[in-house]
Amino acid sequence: MAFCSHFPILWLTLLSLLCLIVTSGHFIPRFPAAAAGPDLQSRSSKHALYKTKFFTQILDHFNYNPNSYKTFQQRYLISDVHWGGAKNKAPIFVYTGNEGDIEWFANNTGFMFETAPHFNALLVFIEHRFYGKSMPFGGNKEVAYSNSSTLGYLSSAQALADYATLIIDLKNNLSASDSPVVVFGGSYGGMLAAWFRMKYPHVAIGALASSAPILHFLDLVSPYAFTNVITQDFKSESENCYEVIKGSWKQIEDTANRHGGLELLRKSFRICKNYISADALKGWLMTALMYTAMTDYPTPSNFLNPLPAHPVRKMCEAIDSLAHENDTFAKLYRAANIYYNSSGTATCFNLDDDSDPHGLAGWRWQACTEMIMPTGGNNEESIFPASEWKYENRVAFCEVAFGTEPRPHWITTQFGGLGIHRVLRTAASNIIFFNGLRDPWSAGGVVTNISDTIIALVAKQGAHHVDLRFSSKEDPPWLTRIREGELSIISSWISHYYQHLSQ
Amino acid sequence: MAFCSHFPILWLTLLSLLCLIVTSGHFIPRFPAAAAGPDLQSRSSKHALYKTKFFTQILDHFNYNPNSYKTFQQRYLISDVHWGGAKNKAPIFVYTGNEGDIEWFANNTGFMFETAPHFNALLVFIEHRFYGKSMPFGGNKEVAYSNSSTLGYLSSAQALADYATLIIDLKNNLSASDSPVVVFGGSYGGMLAAWFRMKYPHVAIGALASSAPILHFLDLVSPYAFTNVITQDFKSESENCYEVIKGSWKQIEDTANRHGGLELLRKSFRICKNYISADALKGWLMTALMYTAMTDYPTPSNFLNPLPAHPVRKMCEAIDSLAHENDTFAKLYRAANIYYNSSGTATCFNLDDDSDPHGLAGWRWQACTEMIMPTGGNNEESIFPASEWKYENRVAFCEVAFGTEPRPHWITTQFGGLGIHRVLRTAASNIIFFNGLRDPWSAGGVVTNISDTIIALVAKQGAHHVDLRFSSKEDPPWLTRIREGELSIISSWISHYYQHLSQ
Repeated sequence: MAFCSHFPILWLTLLSLLCLIVTSGHFIPRFPAAAAGPDLQSRSSKHALYKTKFFTQILDHFNYNPNSYKTFQQRYLISDVHWGGAKNKAPIFVYTGNEGDIEWFANNTGFMFETAPHFNALLVFIEHRFYGKSMPFGGNKEVAYSNSSTLGYLSSAQALADYATLIIDLKNNLSASDSPVVVFGGSYGGMLAAWFRMKYPHVAIGALASSAPILHFLDLVSPYAFTNVITQDFKSESENCYEVIKGSWKQIEDTANRHGGLELLRKSFRICKNYISADALKGWLMTALMYTAMTDYPTPSNFLNPLPAHPVRKMCEAIDSLAHENDTFAKLYRAANIYYNSSGTATCFNLDDDSDPHGLAGWRWQACTEMIMPTGGNNEESIFPASEWKYENRVAFCEVAFGTEPRPHWITTQFGGLGIHRVLRTAASNIIFFNGLRDPWSAGGVVTNISDTIIALVAKQGAHHVDLRFSSKEDPPWLTRIREGELSIISSWISHYYQHLSQ
Repeated sequence: MAFCSHFPILWLTLLSLLCLIVTSGHFIPRFPAAAAGPDLQSRSSKHALYKTKFFTQILDHFNYNPNSYKTFQQRYLISDVHWGGAKNKAPIFVYTGNEGDIEWFANNTGFMFETAPHFNALLVFIEHRFYGKSMPFGGNKEVAYSNSSTLGYLSSAQALADYATLIIDLKNNLSASDSPVVVFGGSYGGMLAAWFRMKYPHVAIGALASSAPILHFLDLVSPYAFTNVITQDFKSESENCYEVIKGSWKQIEDTANRHGGLELLRKSFRICKNYISADALKGWLMTALMYTAMTDYPTPSNFLNPLPAHPVRKMCEAIDSLAHENDTFAKLYRAANIYYNSSGTATCFNLDDDSDPHGLAGWRWQACTEMIMPTGGNNEESIFPASEWKYENRVAFCEVAFGTEPRPHWITTQFGGLGIHRVLRTAASNIIFFNGLRDPWSAGGVVTNISDTIIALVAKQGAHHVDLRFSSKEDPPWLTRIREGELSIISSWISHYYQHLSQ
């Protein structure tokens, strides 16, 4: 559930959990980042849009043993160019960082930069502990990630407590105790934003939780739901496209089992001279399909690999354009090129690229402790090979990877989920849940209104937190309307806050 | 903030934090228990009103290092004699245990036993970790309390997480997932009940938080507020009574400094042949005054020492009855006898009794980590000697006692407090805050309504969680009305819950 760097799907390996498929029935998909906007820091070194600061954060908020008192430097980015100031009680917009480098998220959350002038808002992007430069244990990632004794401090509850502590301290330092705080987040960061508003309503007056699958735990949604969305994405473009892809897995398997088959597959998909297997190839293709579905944006995007507008449609067009041919591999190869090689310059592809330029590796730990999101099941209709989500597979993986045991019930114990509409109707307020229905993570999201102030904004044509991306002239009207709706709701929260400030 | 056993006030010693005065400006008062009802378990061994059970609880909910996976046996008491059963979705009433033996609290919370038949409710009393028999580290209190590495797991957040985990598991085991849970608590248990509803609204539909000073942190209330209430309690009975007590402290000091003065004081107050000093004597008297104010119930009560109805009035009557005499010590001695010797059988008194029959010692740790409640200041009008609350004194004490440093901001960071009316108005619901205004802890309580569903019930004549006590025929009408009001509100929560269950 991260922004996945090169999306290596490692089939039946334990090298990395990034986009990992431990078995065919145990896939751990990750969130992709929204298409990156311009690099805000590099626009001009003299006029950087944010400053980088560090806050001395406590290691364990919920325990008082001597180790808990250790501290680490938590990075945050702050942009005050549009802030109306403490005297005017001008708002503070805080991004609740996800599982990666906070600069990357800041660069991918143009919505906050674009709305700051309208609200005279201070912008703060807080990095999640154990990611980027916010590394406990002396800032030494090697030490911090060395074993479960150090990684043990990496959890969502600690991260939320970090945010509360940092925000309160920052407001005190700015003498801005009356400035309302609104939290923003996408993907895992969106889950954190929603949970932050639920757990710390005295710190944030509202939350925009974009593409936050807070219901994707236990059996609150079907383990098939995630890939069902992907299936529908491709089906909606072309029945033939769906059929070709669905039929390809057995062909790959059969070919790999034939003498010389692996070499044929290597040539067909222009795989570099590295390791190849049917599983690795299937994982590589599934990755392309999954992340293209997640980032099926209506405008060209530059995520990790550049993508055209409507990339799922482009994939299906690539497949359908060869409808008269029988070569399934050629069709799939064309489709994969949309994702892996839109520039057309790649000469061959690596199946086992496990580079991690955005520092997402900590998600492996989170997926082995509390983030047990059943997403890897595929029913008979699935575009992927039929398989079952099996919790035991996760347990087995985590035992080997960390010698640790997941706590699959903890997220729902801590944050709820069952009967969320009934519960939150009176016990929370001021949350926007945005979901794009082409995003497989929308299956675990809140897609109907909970109350007058807990609003589900749903875009049928939208993908993974598309609303948070920088706007562009090519944005379709529905996307503009979504953002206007978000602005309007946030504006009403702030107005109500000022009205009731004296109470 | 516990129910204090024999209320030793240890002046300038570090032996115990129970009812401790570290310096005259640094008093840590504790909550007294409501008057004990009949011993429910001993009524009849064949028909005990509750069964004792144990739940395997995890040591640290918010951390995933190997130590956090250790478990301990958490005790809870369960009474199903009136329960309507899972099929009928009958309610579950849960007492969120305070800092002591849970049987003691159960025996002191007659209100729940008396209301169970009306609601066909299952009753569950959960013991707080590190108290009673719910001892981590193999159930061995000596180990659990040995140092800050083991005590570190004693915190309010862990306790709340324990309750959520246990309740969810219990409901699953009873197939009672649709049974609404209401939490109850008094004193620190009341704070936990209120916080539980705020943080775990998906587990409990509402909370009765009796005498819960959730605002008694940082500078949210004046450090003089606590003793101001005590001052007013005595003043309201008799101006002369107040003047005599207020004037006595200097007399005790002056006498102690005279040759033979300590012996005179010993005789005047019938102190046994143990250690005596002016500070110890003053502490002993202050304890009597403070706890009599807290437990100034309208009916005779049997707390730790038996007390008559309206004991503050009785104390002042004892003082005023000697109005024609000049012997201040004789007046004070009479007053102290109301608290320490209502039976009239004591022949002498110990100043340094630090026995702890209800297992409250863990509060020392809590008062040295997160429960930093400024209560020990006395302004010029105070019935006690003028003094200032000094945070530094707490820090110094905790350094010596545990080698640990308090985190005075954490409770308000975690649970809020500032602007609570504005914040909770839309971000929470279904909480009753009861406060009796003769209770000094009411100074840190919520005493005005927050919303239609967060209700402050205030009894001008009430003392510390008097509403939770067993009812009696002598109860005044206002107390009966308070309890009826609570029943009516809880009833409405349950009705609404059933109405919206399908949502």
